[in-house]
Amino acid sequence: MTPLRSLIRTIPDHPKPGVQFRDITTLLRDPEGLRLSVEAIADRHRSTSRRSLGPVGGAEVDLVVGIEARGFIFGTAIAYRLGVGFVPLRKPGKLPGATVGRDFALEYGEDRIEMHVGAVETGSRVLLVDDLIATGGTASAAVELLRDAGAEIVECAFVIALPDLGGVERLERQGCSVFSLCDFAGD
Amino acid sequence: MTPLRSLIRTIPDHPKPGVQFRDITTLLRDPEGLRLSVEAIADRHRSTSRRSLGPVGGAEVDLVVGIEARGFIFGTAIAYRLGVGFVPLRKPGKLPGATVGRDFALEYGEDRIEMHVGAVETGSRVLLVDDLIATGGTASAAVELLRDAGAEIVECAFVIALPDLGGVERLERQGCSVFSLCDFAGD
Repeated sequence: MTPLRSLIRTIPDHPKPGVQFRDITTLLRDPEGLRLSVEAIADRHRSTSRRSLGPVGGAEVDLVVGIEARGFIFGTAIAYRLGVGFVPLRKPGKLPGATVGRDFALEYGEDRIEMHVGAVETGSRVLLVDDLIATGGTASAAVELLRDAGAEIVECAFVIALPDLGGVERLERQGCSVFSLCDFAGD
Repeated sequence: MTPLRSLIRTIPDHPKPGVQFRDITTLLRDPEGLRLSVEAIADRHRSTSRRSLGPVGGAEVDLVVGIEARGFIFGTAIAYRLGVGFVPLRKPGKLPGATVGRDFALEYGEDRIEMHVGAVETGSRVLLVDDLIATGGTASAAVELLRDAGAEIVECAFVIALPDLGGVERLERQGCSVFSLCDFAGD
């Protein structure tokens, strides 16, 4: 077991009975936990031979894209580590400029994710980041939205995966490479 | 003028006529813009100067606290840069554990900001981060909440300040040191 896992707090029966909520805030407030999480995701995408070259050297992605709101928490730090830019995907009506969006189904009802027009250039190599993947509805819609804009999804990276809920497989069926730091399965 | 300022997009009459919305997403997607913003805020709070994209050591704060949602964008990267932990302040009902909170007035109505119980230890030296300060309602409530928890506010740092709207003065009246990267005044 990675020591990172022990920094994730489990809150039983939240938000409803039977759900074990995995709380990343205890990981975030730990200096080593934050550092190791950021580097474990970012450094998969640096060319080690050029690691010493600084901000514009070594990154094998062009952009990190993070999903509101907890994807922002890790995404920008990972982008900073890689020396690349960051693009936020937000809930409807939150971005001030012209947007493109994608609707997706939730357990009950629908939701939508939006991105600024022109935020991602055709051919951009994108690292998509969120804190957790469960059923994968949001991440799957994000992948479609990014590909519509011409992006190549290099990897979908998560701090936590709940593989029993099917989201990892769903992204893999879309042809995505999926990476997670900590898996919580069968509980 | 700092070149960072030129990376901030102005969207006229958003969200209502007469308001010039300052959009940081154009700054974030620029690798140098993101890097310089993070370092300009973080590096004021460390005792040693060392060029790298990793944690640099010598932090003179114990913790970075960021305000939902755009404070998360910069806050975690700044915490990573400083090699310290990050604590999110969130809107009501978003944090899974037991919380403490503070109500505050908006132009129309009320809002509330919450923090996990125990997230900040007594005597912690805190750097409070958000993307923008306007009237300062949220930041002012955050300062009170953090001080109630026993924190020392070393600085309130913002990417953008709108000094005409009074928030900077309001924080200074609370005894806070305020830093901003770009001021937009008189327009």
